[in-house]
Amino acid sequence: MKKNAVLEDPLFQNLSVREKSTLQANSSVVSFDDTEMFLKKGTFLFSIYYVNKGVIKIKGEDNRMLDLLGPQNVIGLNHLFKQEPIFFSAYGIENTEIIQIERNVLKNFINTNPKFLEDIYNKAIENPELLIRNVIAYRNHNITGALASFLIYYNEKDCLHALTQKEISEILGYSRENVSRCLNTFQQSKYIKCNDGSIEVLDMSALSKFQQFG
Amino acid sequence: MKKNAVLEDPLFQNLSVREKSTLQANSSVVSFDDTEMFLKKGTFLFSIYYVNKGVIKIKGEDNRMLDLLGPQNVIGLNHLFKQEPIFFSAYGIENTEIIQIERNVLKNFINTNPKFLEDIYNKAIENPELLIRNVIAYRNHNITGALASFLIYYNEKDCLHALTQKEISEILGYSRENVSRCLNTFQQSKYIKCNDGSIEVLDMSALSKFQQFG
Repeated sequence: MKKNAVLEDPLFQNLSVREKSTLQANSSVVSFDDTEMFLKKGTFLFSIYYVNKGVIKIKGEDNRMLDLLGPQNVIGLNHLFKQEPIFFSAYGIENTEIIQIERNVLKNFINTNPKFLEDIYNKAIENPELLIRNVIAYRNHNITGALASFLIYYNEKDCLHALTQKEISEILGYSRENVSRCLNTFQQSKYIKCNDGSIEVLDMSALSKFQQFG
Repeated sequence: MKKNAVLEDPLFQNLSVREKSTLQANSSVVSFDDTEMFLKKGTFLFSIYYVNKGVIKIKGEDNRMLDLLGPQNVIGLNHLFKQEPIFFSAYGIENTEIIQIERNVLKNFINTNPKFLEDIYNKAIENPELLIRNVIAYRNHNITGALASFLIYYNEKDCLHALTQKEISEILGYSRENVSRCLNTFQQSKYIKCNDGSIEVLDMSALSKFQQFG
């Protein structure tokens, strides 16, 4: 059964058999056939979402792309104990599958299972910290180095699907024209291959050099 | 007695009288007469630090300034349950006072006091989220707008002391020359007053306009 995927994640390893079966009973699978918003900026959050496959696009101010979340990421942990609207929107794309988990179920586990509390606490802080490091790295690099960093990081997270150049430029903070030019150069040099918005990395070591020196 | 300051913070409002007295017994006041590092990048963290007065400078990669933390901020919450070295260094400056709290004491409270857990969890996520929003705002503004945002945000947090132009330029991601020129323009227009590294905001509404349109 599909739902079990979430139970195999290391994040849930410290749950008891009983807790796992409660989690199972209080979660449901959501699939996307096309790009669709499932969380809207300014609304309240009563669920947590586990990315099972595909990619989730996180958009912030002015609907600008902020981050991409691939399999094994969790959305909404930052709002687990907050009574305020979220500051981002979240979109699923084609072939994406997420598992919606009731927030109160996780809260109950946290209050009674100290090991699970540690795992959730660390996971909640992981994404914002990575995002800060990435945004600062893009800023401290020229466009070539920034794009190389972007490709390496999100390739590893299996997130380079269905991306527009506009979205890449929003994440990087460089103009769309510059991003387009640089993607073309990378493609001509056979470092990457672009197919209909999906990017395949062909030469990781070449990109690593740009990341280091660019 | 000085130490009590931390107990009056809303962050600790949900501790019982008994817990507060344990906290008091397991914390100590540290003062700075000059700029001094008290946390070094790459080391392990066994304490949490509450900023009682003054400013803490957080420096990241290549010792570049990342953030400024004023009174009522807490340092180290992101490492409460992590067994890995920290990725930042922290410096106190003249007239800064922090309260060092043993990490295990907080952990024990969290495991037995669900209300306090919520407060700590939210506090741990607050700083990284604000930092992301700031860094992205700087990036999406020209230098005038970015500097205005910086001054408004850190003035409110009471952090505009003992800053070098190099440090401001590291936080903003703009060159030192541009930061220097822009600070001079703001000073000539009487929006701010610079004294020996400390910046006093004189005209908040003028800066707000730059933040909005710059």
